[in-house]
Amino acid sequence: MEKINNFSFSGKSCGLKKNKNLDVGLMVSETPLNVSAVFTRNKVKAAPVIISKKNSKNVIKALIVNSGNANACNGKYGILDAKRVLESVSKEIGAAPENIFICSTGVIGERLDATLIERAVPELVKAADKSGFDDFAKSIMTTDTFCKTASKEVILDGVKYSIIGTAKGSGMIMPNMATMLAFIFSDIPLSKEKADEIFKDCVETSFNSITVDGDTSTNDTAAFFYPHAGENTEKVNKERSFKKSSANYNIVKNALSEVCFELAKMIVKDGEGATKFIKITVMNAYTESGAKKIAFTVANSPLFKTMITGEDLNWGRIMAAIGRSSVPLKPENIDIYINDKLIVQDSTVFKGLSKAEEKYVLSPKEIDFKIDLKCGKKNRSVLTCNLTKEYIDINASYRS
Amino acid sequence: MEKINNFSFSGKSCGLKKNKNLDVGLMVSETPLNVSAVFTRNKVKAAPVIISKKNSKNVIKALIVNSGNANACNGKYGILDAKRVLESVSKEIGAAPENIFICSTGVIGERLDATLIERAVPELVKAADKSGFDDFAKSIMTTDTFCKTASKEVILDGVKYSIIGTAKGSGMIMPNMATMLAFIFSDIPLSKEKADEIFKDCVETSFNSITVDGDTSTNDTAAFFYPHAGENTEKVNKERSFKKSSANYNIVKNALSEVCFELAKMIVKDGEGATKFIKITVMNAYTESGAKKIAFTVANSPLFKTMITGEDLNWGRIMAAIGRSSVPLKPENIDIYINDKLIVQDSTVFKGLSKAEEKYVLSPKEIDFKIDLKCGKKNRSVLTCNLTKEYIDINASYRS
Repeated sequence: MEKINNFSFSGKSCGLKKNKNLDVGLMVSETPLNVSAVFTRNKVKAAPVIISKKNSKNVIKALIVNSGNANACNGKYGILDAKRVLESVSKEIGAAPENIFICSTGVIGERLDATLIERAVPELVKAADKSGFDDFAKSIMTTDTFCKTASKEVILDGVKYSIIGTAKGSGMIMPNMATMLAFIFSDIPLSKEKADEIFKDCVETSFNSITVDGDTSTNDTAAFFYPHAGENTEKVNKERSFKKSSANYNIVKNALSEVCFELAKMIVKDGEGATKFIKITVMNAYTESGAKKIAFTVANSPLFKTMITGEDLNWGRIMAAIGRSSVPLKPENIDIYINDKLIVQDSTVFKGLSKAEEKYVLSPKEIDFKIDLKCGKKNRSVLTCNLTKEYIDINASYRS
Repeated sequence: MEKINNFSFSGKSCGLKKNKNLDVGLMVSETPLNVSAVFTRNKVKAAPVIISKKNSKNVIKALIVNSGNANACNGKYGILDAKRVLESVSKEIGAAPENIFICSTGVIGERLDATLIERAVPELVKAADKSGFDDFAKSIMTTDTFCKTASKEVILDGVKYSIIGTAKGSGMIMPNMATMLAFIFSDIPLSKEKADEIFKDCVETSFNSITVDGDTSTNDTAAFFYPHAGENTEKVNKERSFKKSSANYNIVKNALSEVCFELAKMIVKDGEGATKFIKITVMNAYTESGAKKIAFTVANSPLFKTMITGEDLNWGRIMAAIGRSSVPLKPENIDIYINDKLIVQDSTVFKGLSKAEEKYVLSPKEIDFKIDLKCGKKNRSVLTCNLTKEYIDINASYRS
């Protein structure tokens, strides 16, 4: 069970989910926090995204999240209902609504029953304590099959700090900013400017490098909470020589990166219906954005994903996906390695593989693809999973 | 059975497909033809695409096609093997290899056994006649469950002409130029310049407006063959006042358009595992390319496709797909109609639908979506199908 100074957590069932699973979670902080947050780039934004984007400029005292309803596409009622939730938390903890961060996840286009959350808030506040992180993490799950948390300790100038985080997947996942929801908490005093910078980088190589089904949600939010200490933070940061690329800066960045990456990995492993975990690295591209585009084109190809399910080494589908990504490359130059075995050399089959090896190359649960374009110097990795019949079962009846 | 002056067709089984289905087809013309052709924009191009692109500048005397092997990603052997096939046809019909059009479809990255085709060519040539079109059409099928042909007659200045066509689908279909293979033949004498112009437009609104799985193949080719008569054609065209938007021009364009569109529709209907036929029209966008991008983003969304399979009106998935398409729009303005029933009004649920209506809105086999952005004046339609477990069955074991 993860604990962290100053942060209290709780999770309850308020009735949004019919199966009585936890569906509303709260974080309350003893001291004011800053938040560095990235939100969905989807033009259709859920009401809580619109509100939290605004509130993230203020100091934050609490975070309220519900699952079971995304509160998206509800017109003016979306904002009204989200504000009712904020009011009820505000009343209980004595902080203004502007100092509360709010998120929702679940079905789109059904009105949020704010009364259910209002009723649960007093109990949530009462229950909130240092050991409530697991309940909080459970309360944000939707089709997730396991609860996703990660943590890391760092020592800065002899003082021990913690970073703990939780995230939820597991469909409508190709974040264009962040996964549906990811929350990371730390007791490291950081300036907002530095934290924003570090967090943005961490998100790009973790939550922005995964895909389950290529669908970016209306609610994607990744938020990193840490103590707000005003000028004091600046002073602490300065004393620690917290400049970009300094030792302390790198310690924090690496630790935060690891927590984000671990959570991102869990989201992919728990992709709806997924049975295989896939890493695709595009190497030696002309640009990093080109490498990323190719990796995502392969990762989102239904033909690639079903090939993995069938464990059938039909590598032409990888070549076709690379070629249609419209990224500049040398079409005759491509090498492909699967779990470090050379499969394709100069865009045609490598003959060195025995029939038996070919048969089993896709049988592991975790499969590592390296696509070497041999034309530039830039690399990029993305994580994904396979496409199975279970994905279709889950999504043909998500609401029922 | 379709017949057309000057064109002879045949189809045979040469052994590329293990199940003895027809796998090689031939068209021979008594008189020289022109061809207007569009090819895949995939950067990884199959050998026959590279060759036919070059040959399409010459007059054409024959077309040879095989299924069962795409002859893509075979390095230098790809070109060598395709040339061997051309040589064998050339020898039998007495035309230069440069005057023959060649296409392949099937598995990528396995070497084409040119010997099998060489052996079949003499018989193919002998069998070719006016009534062989059905055999030809069958010989290009891969996972297609039915043979796709369409035809149209037109009268120009009192003379009757024909347009007949065939196409094959049905996976790796999101043509970025044309479907995997589509061939259209006509006895209308046209100048290459005019035919190129007309055919390009027809392809854009037919084969370039469909998607099964978002995967563009390495072999996509759509080709339109018609009599080459050199200066004579120009004269005929001139006499017929064949200017853009003249009556004759429109007759030909409309007829060719209909043939292309009918074939495109059949490809979607025969999409791998598909049980529903879906038309998505985006209306009142700022630009046509924006309308097309939104329509394709919705059409390729696995969450949208599985919702159709489950007949579950989870329209928030449509909103999410529209929003992530990164096309300029007014996010609060969107109306969605399904089979002309208003479902979403101003980006939120329309209340006028009864529970019973809501339940059955997705039950028809053919479903028409209209997405009205209410911000500009441009419209665009695309065709697609749903995603079912059968798609996964088919593609998890395509090679076996």
